[in-house]
Order: sequence, then structure tokens, then C-alpha cells
Amino acid sequence: MAFDFDYFSPTKVVFGRGAEKRIGELIREFGGSRVLIHYGGKSAVKSGLIDRIKEALDKDGIGHAELGGVVPNPRLSLVYEGINLCREKNIDFILAVGGGSVIDSSKAIGYGLANEGDVWDLFRHVKEAEGCCPVGVVLTIAAAGSETSDSCVITKEDENRKRAYGSNLSRPKFAVMNPELTMTLPDYQTQAGCADIMMHTMERYFTSGGNMELTDAISEGLLRVVMKNAEILHNDPMNYDARAEIMWAGSLSHNTLTGCGNDGGDFSSHMMEHEMGGMFDVTHGAGLTAIWPSWARYCMDSCLERFVKFAQNVMGVSEIGSDRETAEQGIRRMEEFYHRIGMPVNMTELGIAPTDEQIQVMAEETIKAAGGSQGSAKVLNTEDIIKIYHMAK
Amino acid sequence: MAFDFDYFSPTKVVFGRGAEKRIGELIREFGGSRVLIHYGGKSAVKSGLIDRIKEALDKDGIGHAELGGVVPNPRLSLVYEGINLCREKNIDFILAVGGGSVIDSSKAIGYGLANEGDVWDLFRHVKEAEGCCPVGVVLTIAAAGSETSDSCVITKEDENRKRAYGSNLSRPKFAVMNPELTMTLPDYQTQAGCADIMMHTMERYFTSGGNMELTDAISEGLLRVVMKNAEILHNDPMNYDARAEIMWAGSLSHNTLTGCGNDGGDFSSHMMEHEMGGMFDVTHGAGLTAIWPSWARYCMDSCLERFVKFAQNVMGVSEIGSDRETAEQGIRRMEEFYHRIGMPVNMTELGIAPTDEQIQVMAEETIKAAGGSQGSAKVLNTEDIIKIYHMAK
Repeated sequence: MAFDFDYFSPTKVVFGRGAEKRIGELIREFGGSRVLIHYGGKSAVKSGLIDRIKEALDKDGIGHAELGGVVPNPRLSLVYEGINLCREKNIDFILAVGGGSVIDSSKAIGYGLANEGDVWDLFRHVKEAEGCCPVGVVLTIAAAGSETSDSCVITKEDENRKRAYGSNLSRPKFAVMNPELTMTLPDYQTQAGCADIMMHTMERYFTSGGNMELTDAISEGLLRVVMKNAEILHNDPMNYDARAEIMWAGSLSHNTLTGCGNDGGDFSSHMMEHEMGGMFDVTHGAGLTAIWPSWARYCMDSCLERFVKFAQNVMGVSEIGSDRETAEQGIRRMEEFYHRIGMPVNMTELGIAPTDEQIQVMAEETIKAAGGSQGSAKVLNTEDIIKIYHMAK
Repeated sequence: MAFDFDYFSPTKVVFGRGAEKRIGELIREFGGSRVLIHYGGKSAVKSGLIDRIKEALDKDGIGHAELGGVVPNPRLSLVYEGINLCREKNIDFILAVGGGSVIDSSKAIGYGLANEGDVWDLFRHVKEAEGCCPVGVVLTIAAAGSETSDSCVITKEDENRKRAYGSNLSRPKFAVMNPELTMTLPDYQTQAGCADIMMHTMERYFTSGGNMELTDAISEGLLRVVMKNAEILHNDPMNYDARAEIMWAGSLSHNTLTGCGNDGGDFSSHMMEHEMGGMFDVTHGAGLTAIWPSWARYCMDSCLERFVKFAQNVMGVSEIGSDRETAEQGIRRMEEFYHRIGMPVNMTELGIAPTDEQIQVMAEETIKAAGGSQGSAKVLNTEDIIKIYHMAK
């Protein structure tokens, strides 16, 4: 049974070696004339990428300002700084050079420029955006999928609040995707990115109520390809083709293609990881692999058919046994895969040890952020989430 | 090895039961205020669909004119009529209600409205489009994929010339896709549509030089899903879920997703079928299945690896044998599938019997339309194409 769905993924993807040379042409195509180059740490500068981009803009006669310093869990204070800078410099286009954090910070600045009042009001969900200054992307990390997605997650650091806002208005106009730009990423970050990419599809795969065969086939194929190429990169980080597979999978995994006809997805693992990330300093993708096996074992009886299909079509389980045994075997093989790429399968391996009180707080915050109960594969309440956190210790 | 690629598929898809109720909102979202409702034969009127659409527009206060009469291989004369009507009525949005022919006719009218001079100059490739009046779609036939594609094929009937023009400018703003609207289609049209959908992916699959694993996985999954659901519809034409799978596959098969990282595709079967369609009155999808097995056998040695992969991952061939035997077995199973859904596997079954002279003309025209040689799986010249046509008799 297929649910009704909307699908809208208008971002123009320019994929391949040297693709960043085309940014001047792309910015003009989407109406930009004065650009903010927004980026994170020093690696984008040290690698010469920022200079190459400035040269390309200069050559095309496109004015630019720049703002670096975006950190993981991008901060509201820098968003405010970006908004002020853009107003001062009459910026009409924001070029994000980086991964999910830089792109999300750029989207938030875009919202701030196109809407009156405090941009945080969007993230507090007390008003809706009426516009967004156009954003383009030069992607340097394959993970978050923000280069084609409608979502934006910002942290208000003085209140330690991480909040999301989604709207088609913020979907990037273009995404320049050169797999070579991801080659210098440390293996742990590469693999955490692969885990995040997979989870964006898995969150949409484990649902109850309705699924399209075509969506399942795409999802299963994507997961198999990411697993294979994550292992290749674990041993051969400079492999261009493997980088290309992972990079393109990152965009398709989170542009909603892998959710068409489903009920919107489960996303409990993401919600639980967000709280772990808020309380402890963990890498998002690693936090996801630390929680998923426990989530899966807790929930599998509620949508056993999906877990069996996953075990067979993604994890290659062909052993004859009960459905529960097949499902468990699929989860176990995913744990083995996580270990092969150096990712944790529980919180101890992740390096955190929350107390009972901390687990209580994280569970309550998960439910609060979800606005009641949470999940589709199995609908979870606070008690369920406490149990899953304990299983994941 | 992955080729560089651009991917741009901005069409907003609204999918599901009753989706056509949202057209007023969608037309407004994309700036339309006075709409041409463009459609084909009487079925859209008799079914009440055109009336429902008019009511929806009236309710939303959107003015409209209408123009029916689009035929398969849509004609330039009606395009001219549409352009004149739109100018007279100050139309700023074209709503195509139908399948590929109606959508292509709408795109051509859109080009005519936004460009000076004779619109046929685009199809003669003597100038490039600078704009296109926006087009939206209410899809009633799953086949051509024009609802998300950039392509447009028009026939200048007085010269019997069928010519294509492609540009991102013409990609529809939205596509309303309600699988229920395809349920009354005769089985032969449904199955010819499925064959066309599959061929849009197969033309991109059989290439030499480069492929992405992710693209292959998506393509193979799409083909398996279409084959399964085509057979379901052959016996149970009112099956909503099967209609939904086929309809969504039709859009994804031709929006370039299944060609990302490939070399652009082969498309020789399409080119040869176009000439058969020009000379004889054949249904496009049936013409494709009549030529493909002969094309495949003629070309398979030139990209045997792809034919083996296809046999194994799409056609389920697991027998042990030489690569040639595996490839041949895959082609044979495709012929068996075509027969199961009532499609021809050669020109005799298609009901045409071209003379040697006619074959000579068709082959020469194929090469002329290709502008030299043709193909990627194997590069074909006139002599090759003559041999394939003879094999397909």
C-alpha cells in the first residue's frame, strides 16, 4: 500500500572532478551578484579551495565577502553575525563551502535575510518563513545530505538548545559535488558520514503501514552500495570512484527519494542521538551506530516483516530460520559491518557512560522534541526510550 | 569509473489519490493566473476529468481556456493553434492533461509563447530557446516520462518530420500523478507504456566506458519492479498499487536519475523505433520491444560485461555458463517477458513488414537524425542498422 506523497528536489547537481570551477556560472544562473562565502575551519582555507573559489568569482566579476568559523552543531551567534555581515555588504547569494554544518548555517543566514524579526523564531516554531536568500553549495563532506534537503539544524549555544526548521524555501539552488574534495577527510569522519547517509535511508525504510516496492528497491540498492564503498574507503581513502558513490548516495539518501510512498519515516534513532549529542560531545554518525542496534532489537517485533526484508535484501541473510531469527541475523550483520568500518555499536564503544539520571533527562527531552510520542516502526514513549538507552549502554 | 554529470529535476511531484484537486494551489504557487487546459482525445472529457479540473480552477478564481485534439506524434499545426489561442487569451500557464504527446505539445506551445519567430526553428536546431511559458501536468498515461523530462518531440506533419528539442527551460513546474487516472487505459497501451518506461532505463544501462554502482542498483531495481507490476496489471488492471509503482517508475526512469555517471546512454533502439514509427503506424512502446532483442544480440559482444550484469541482476539468470550464454539467456528471458505482457519481439509480431528498400531508408534516416554514427553500447553505422532491422524482421 502506497501513501500519497509530494516529491520536490529542485537542487541542480553538478558532479565530478573540477566541478567547483563552474560556480561563477552557477551563481549567475540563479541570480546572484554579491556572494557570502561561508565555511568552517581552516582546512578549506589551507587546501586552497577558498582561494580557488575567490579566483573563480573574481574572474566572473562576482563580488564577495567571507565568513568562516562554522563548527559542528552550528551556532546561532555565528548566524546572527552572518546576517549582519550580509546586510552590510548587500549580499544576495550565500555560497556554503563545507558539509552539513556549513550548509545549515548558510540556510539560517538566508532565512534571517529574507524574514523580519529574530530568525530563531523559525526554529522555536512560532512563525513560518516567507522567503530565504538563495544558497548554493560546494560540498566537501558526504554525510548530512543538507545539500539537497529542506532541513536546517541550529544550536542556540547559550541555552544549549539544538532545533530544526524545514522548508522548501531553503533547498540549495545548486550543489557542486567534486568527490576529490572529500579525500582528505580523516577515516573516522568518512565512516561516520557513511553511517549517517545509511541512516537517512534506514529511518525511512523501517516504517509501518505502507511502502512502495520501487522506493524499497532504491533504498536497498543504496544501502548495499554505501556499505561496499565505505569498506573500500576504510582501506583506500583516495579511491575516487568509491568517494563518488558515497557522495551521490549522501544526496539521494536525504532528498526524500528513499521515502516516497512511505509514511514519513521513523527517525527515532536520530531523535535519540540528538540528545546524546546535546549532552555529550559525540560525532553524529557514530552516535547513530551506537544507538541503532538497540533501537532495532527493541522495535523489530512491531514491524518484523520490514526487518526480515532488510536482512535478506540488504544484509544478504539467506539462512533458513524463523522471521525473528532472520531479523536478528540482519541486525547482527549490521553490527559486524559497523565494527569493520570502525564505528561503535553501543555507548561504551562510543566512549560515553550516561548515568540513570542523564538517561532519564535524554529520554524526556527526546519525547519533548518529538512533541509527544515518537516513531513509526514502533511508537515509543519515555519509558520505551529509557529502556533503549539502557540496552545501548 | 564514473563520468561527470549534471542532474536537474526540479519538477514538483504531487502523487496519490485525488491529487488533481490541488491544481489550483499548484498553479498559483508557480505564478499562473490564466491557464490553457491542453488535452488529447475524448476520454479526458468523457471521464469527467476536464470538468473536474475546470471546477477546481473556477473555485480558485483562475481563468482558463481549453484546447483538445492532441494526437500521438503531436503535430506542429496544433502547436501553432495553441500559441495563437494563448496570445489571444493572455495565457500565462499551460496545463497538460494527458500523457507524453499532450505534455510535449504543451511544452512546444510554451516555447512558442516565450520566443520570437517560428517555434519550429528550435526543432530544426537553428536557434536555442531563451524561455518557456510554464507548464504543469495532470498525468493520465504512465509511459513517456515527459512530466519530469526536458525533452519535447513534435511532428511537422506536412513534411512528415518528427524532431526533438530538449532544454531545462521546459521541465514541467509540477506533475500531478494520481494512479487512478491511468486505470481505464487499455491493456495494450498500459503494457506498451511499461515497455517504454523500461527502455528509458535500459538505453542508459547499456553503455560502454563508465557506470556508477549506485545508478546501476537504482536502474536494476526499477526494471525488476516495472516487470513485476506490468504482469500484475496485465491480469488486474485496476490494481492501484501496481499502477502507482508503474507511474512513479515512469518519472524516475526518464528524469536522468538512471543515467547519472554514465556516458549519456545508447538510445539506438529509440532512434531505430522512431523511423519505424515514422514509416508505419506503430505504438512507440511496442515498436521498442520489436527491435530491442535484435539490437541486443547484435551489440552484446561490444559490452558483454553489461549484458551479463543485466542478465543476473535484472533477469535473474543464475545458470553457470559462458558470459555469452548468460547474456543470451538474459535477452531470451526479456523476450519471454515481452510475450507474457502481450508485446511483440520482432516486426512480424508488431504487424509490419518493411521491404529492403524501406529498411535502407529507415537506416539512412536513423543515422541522419543521429548526425553521424549512433550508439554507446556499440557504435553503429548505416550498415549495422540495416543488419539489425533485418534481424528484427
